[in-house]
Amino acid sequence: MDLHIIGLLVENKPGVLNRVSGLFSRRGFNIESISVGVTENPDISRMTITLEGDEKVLEQVIKQLNKQIDVIKVTELKEDYVERELALIKVNASNPDERSEVMQVADVFRANIIDVSKKTVTIEVTGDQEKIDAIIDMVKKHGIKELAQTGVVAMNRGKKSIKKGEENE
Amino acid sequence: MDLHIIGLLVENKPGVLNRVSGLFSRRGFNIESISVGVTENPDISRMTITLEGDEKVLEQVIKQLNKQIDVIKVTELKEDYVERELALIKVNASNPDERSEVMQVADVFRANIIDVSKKTVTIEVTGDQEKIDAIIDMVKKHGIKELAQTGVVAMNRGKKSIKKGEENE
Repeated sequence: MDLHIIGLLVENKPGVLNRVSGLFSRRGFNIESISVGVTENPDISRMTITLEGDEKVLEQVIKQLNKQIDVIKVTELKEDYVERELALIKVNASNPDERSEVMQVADVFRANIIDVSKKTVTIEVTGDQEKIDAIIDMVKKHGIKELAQTGVVAMNRGKKSIKKGEENE
Repeated sequence: MDLHIIGLLVENKPGVLNRVSGLFSRRGFNIESISVGVTENPDISRMTITLEGDEKVLEQVIKQLNKQIDVIKVTELKEDYVERELALIKVNASNPDERSEVMQVADVFRANIIDVSKKTVTIEVTGDQEKIDAIIDMVKKHGIKELAQTGVVAMNRGKKSIKKGEENE
């Protein structure tokens, strides 16, 4: 079972996300993370989906997706791409020592402190999954009160892009 | 039509995203952005959904969602919360002047350059929707080759969190 990153351009309409996620769930794929946002063209949304599963079955699902009327283009990102995600981590820190320890960790990971209360510190961190896992690992001894991750966004390096008609060129 | 931010804790299982997005699309809500990632507990995923629509209808949908077996907790984030998203923006820049102009804009927005090719520069930027819209606006004259946004993640300030059983306390 390999981890796959799928990039999709779709029409920005009600029901499209439902149809796309339905195709994956009917084949037994569990979507590990998903990010959906509009593109430079507000009529078009871009989805990035990460999932684990069999390569052969995934190829079939991608073919089916490419046939859907609301789907403009589907590509698996396989090599020479950049990936990023964002996490908000709310950590327990109820005394100055704990607070400064959490802030030090944030500093090392070039993360930002975006909220502080008497009992908590909230960190914003950006990176690949490995980096985000590493910072979570460093702060979890304080107790994680809340964790919200965006899911991965990924893009080919250089001038390649996911565009209609282009064979991922 | 107001913009709403909904935070959900759900079981990390195939089909859950499909059921949640189905509930919204059947009521005619268009999901503007969605982010799904695992939480500190790998059996539980957290979704953040932004959508436009009628407050009354939304309240009904939230009640229905809270009754779903795979849904642990649903809350609308209304006040005193932080929101962030991440965007990757690939911009055309085929000469040194263009390239340095794009890099200057990135600098002003405290964005990172994560890839450079002979014809493009790729920017990673984090912030609220307003900031991301502003940087897109600044670089679009060069031509945006590709734009991938994560969708919003949001969290209550202070010690409040979305937890089962807690009335958003």
